Amino acid sequence: MNYVLAVVTGFNVSGAEEVILKARGRALSRAVDVAEVVRRRFLGGVEIGKIEIGSEEIRIEEENRTTNVSTMEITLTRSKPKPKAKPKRSQQRKKK
Amino acid sequence: MNYVLAVVTGFNVSGAEEVILKARGRALSRAVDVAEVVRRRFLGGVEIGKIEIGSEEIRIEEENRTTNVSTMEITLTRSKPKPKAKPKRSQQRKKK
Repeated sequence: MNYVLAVVTGFNVSGAEEVILKARGRALSRAVDVAEVVRRRFLGGVEIGKIEIGSEEIRIEEENRTTNVSTMEITLTRSKPKPKAKPKRSQQRKKK
Repeated sequence: MNYVLAVVTGFNVSGAEEVILKARGRALSRAVDVAEVVRRRFLGGVEIGKIEIGSEEIRIEEENRTTNVSTMEITLTRSKPKPKAKPKRSQQRKKK
């Protein structure tokens, strides 16, 4: 829930147009949870943009080896409010 | 590792052009792991295509309530082998 708050703060207080959630390993599912909660509950105008996955090599010192851990980046974008439709002008007469 | 094998089988044995990995909840990170292992180690020509996230309502019978679980779909596509460059023809003479 703290992460949700952080994202909402990013959009509302800092006025950011996009917030990127980054996660590694088992926390990937939490990043998706956060993105979904923000999208569904909090801010009507937030959309999920680019999602990227990758992997990173990390070193396990105790076992003296390296292993790969999956990574993920979810870009949340705030959709700009739509401009109000202009009131239709009554048809203007052509100047003679 | 069984999932990696399933994906590789899909591409190599069944000849599929794309394989979609689907996961829910805590298994999301495993889906990303599988996608990354396939992309990096097994098949040179596999690329990660569309990634979609969403959520699903599930019912917990014991507690008589519903909860949301995050879902993810990763599309793996096999990039087609590039057509071999045609051998350059020696310039033909125009017919007179």
